[in-house]
Amino acid sequence: MRATVIHGPNDIRIEEVPDPRIQRPTDAVVRVVNACICGSDLWAYRGVAAREAGQRIGHEFLGVVEEVGSEVSDFKPGDFVVAPFVWSDGTCDFCREGLHTSCPEGGFWGQVGYDGGQGEAVRVPYADGTLVRLPKEAAGDEKLLPGLLALSDVMSTGHHAAVSAGVKAGATVAVVGDGAVGLCGVLAAHRLGAGRIIALGRHQVRTDIARRFGATDVVAERGEAAIEAVKELTKGQGAHAVLEAVGTEESMRTAISVARDGGAVGYVGVPHGGSAGVDIGQMFGRNISLNGGVAPARAYIPELLPDVLSGAIEPGLVFDRTVDLAGVPDGYRAMDERTALKVRIGF
Amino acid sequence: MRATVIHGPNDIRIEEVPDPRIQRPTDAVVRVVNACICGSDLWAYRGVAAREAGQRIGHEFLGVVEEVGSEVSDFKPGDFVVAPFVWSDGTCDFCREGLHTSCPEGGFWGQVGYDGGQGEAVRVPYADGTLVRLPKEAAGDEKLLPGLLALSDVMSTGHHAAVSAGVKAGATVAVVGDGAVGLCGVLAAHRLGAGRIIALGRHQVRTDIARRFGATDVVAERGEAAIEAVKELTKGQGAHAVLEAVGTEESMRTAISVARDGGAVGYVGVPHGGSAGVDIGQMFGRNISLNGGVAPARAYIPELLPDVLSGAIEPGLVFDRTVDLAGVPDGYRAMDERTALKVRIGF
Repeated sequence: MRATVIHGPNDIRIEEVPDPRIQRPTDAVVRVVNACICGSDLWAYRGVAAREAGQRIGHEFLGVVEEVGSEVSDFKPGDFVVAPFVWSDGTCDFCREGLHTSCPEGGFWGQVGYDGGQGEAVRVPYADGTLVRLPKEAAGDEKLLPGLLALSDVMSTGHHAAVSAGVKAGATVAVVGDGAVGLCGVLAAHRLGAGRIIALGRHQVRTDIARRFGATDVVAERGEAAIEAVKELTKGQGAHAVLEAVGTEESMRTAISVARDGGAVGYVGVPHGGSAGVDIGQMFGRNISLNGGVAPARAYIPELLPDVLSGAIEPGLVFDRTVDLAGVPDGYRAMDERTALKVRIGF
Repeated sequence: MRATVIHGPNDIRIEEVPDPRIQRPTDAVVRVVNACICGSDLWAYRGVAAREAGQRIGHEFLGVVEEVGSEVSDFKPGDFVVAPFVWSDGTCDFCREGLHTSCPEGGFWGQVGYDGGQGEAVRVPYADGTLVRLPKEAAGDEKLLPGLLALSDVMSTGHHAAVSAGVKAGATVAVVGDGAVGLCGVLAAHRLGAGRIIALGRHQVRTDIARRFGATDVVAERGEAAIEAVKELTKGQGAHAVLEAVGTEESMRTAISVARDGGAVGYVGVPHGGSAGVDIGQMFGRNISLNGGVAPARAYIPELLPDVLSGAIEPGLVFDRTVDLAGVPDGYRAMDERTALKVRIGF
């Protein structure tokens, strides 16, 4: 089969790789229908996150089950499924508690020795613990596919940010980051009943989506000016809940600074600025909480799925370009240059 | 009157100062019956926290109302009261929400221009918003006084750590710090129904109190060895809730490291190590939360008071020495040298 392979910074190739096959009785093989490129893939693309030359890449996909191992009981060939961005055994303490990302048997698509999501097929470890079934009729529904695909990561991650920040009905929410996760965070906050949602972002194509997702205010400033602007919108108090969806030192500092005393920052941006943006002295005096981390998408998909199927939420709007597998290197370039927000890959 | 005054590092004096008097109609003057020395006072004593020469000190006291301003309606002369370690107006958004420490009109006893708790009397701003009434008969009860005094800070702060760390019935809790706040954290966790409480500490007089307060295990190791020991006690997983009651870089690192994936650190140790102990990378992958800050004692005292009065909890056991006002400088020395755990001041 063909799959996306990363050889080094700015070196993404489409190559012929071995077909996946059942290796353990709990495996399934899924033929990919849609995959996508994640903002976090760009850290590898830019050489900031280390990858071995020749490693697979991509961690978001949905597709059709092609084959299952002898111990897979919940899926059979032909099932239409979405995969969360980590696999998990579904039976350990953490999986049973809904923190599938801490499963000791878990792993991340594309890690050394495993298939990535940006390929024609994927061997799925612990299929019963990992995959979530989708309605078969959705497989051919071009209107539904993007939203279902978004469940694998960005919508679930945006939801995790909102839940971690403690978004409640009527709350004032600020969202730091206008990437796909930040936008999905806006959507998740809106879905949870936030009364006011302030989106921080300066790219109109993105802030337009933010407004469509429920943002009531947009702040285009950055740094100190952004902090001032949010304070001004909130009687000088800041937001009850802040969603941090970038992961840099500056974004974390902004997020903590715009939180209202007693409020919480839901952090889901993969940290690439160390802890320098976390000012524990400021947090202490103002009782700011920092909650979040890598999103247990597997736990959230069943809750979010009905709203995607009904059209109540349309996270698929974050996709503004679709490529075929051969177009993936171009897709990375476009996202790196911010000429595309999020790229979907059709097979 | 006589009061404790700090002139510089290691320079605590008892001096004659002006008698407090009503300055604003919302003031009260309280004649101090008991005060105490806090671990956080030692930061000033050691010169780590800046103080102006001649500034008052002490932020924990209980006493009898001597005089009230014309707008004080909840208290009258003769009332026996305890003061939380910050004053607050009781009417602002934050006070009504229970985060009195963020009251814009609030302040800290001993700040420049205000009386400290370690003196014969204190002018109390916003008496109605600040003070909590105690039963009159308790004023002369030497068995009850220490516990009531502990409500002003250490017991409320230990409770804040436990609440912030999300201690639930049956949970496994680890407490970093064997000072009075850490010990009160053990007591608070026990009161909230923790199933297992691991106290980190190496001074037997303190760990004996921890056990009396409900600790089921004591870990005497520090640093990496402490982390290993807690992991060993918890099937390699760590504690659901961790109470950080020190505030140094090492203690924060230990606290985060011994938290179970998905768990929370309730941080109440006044931060003196910057943010260096906060490893956001480790927190991210394991979904560790960091909640807490300066405790809104005013919000907690009404909840904790009945349990102190009934004897259900005895936080006063953290006091292992009592001095009179003249003995306060010796009290600081003893706490600095760790020959005393917490010093009570009788007037």
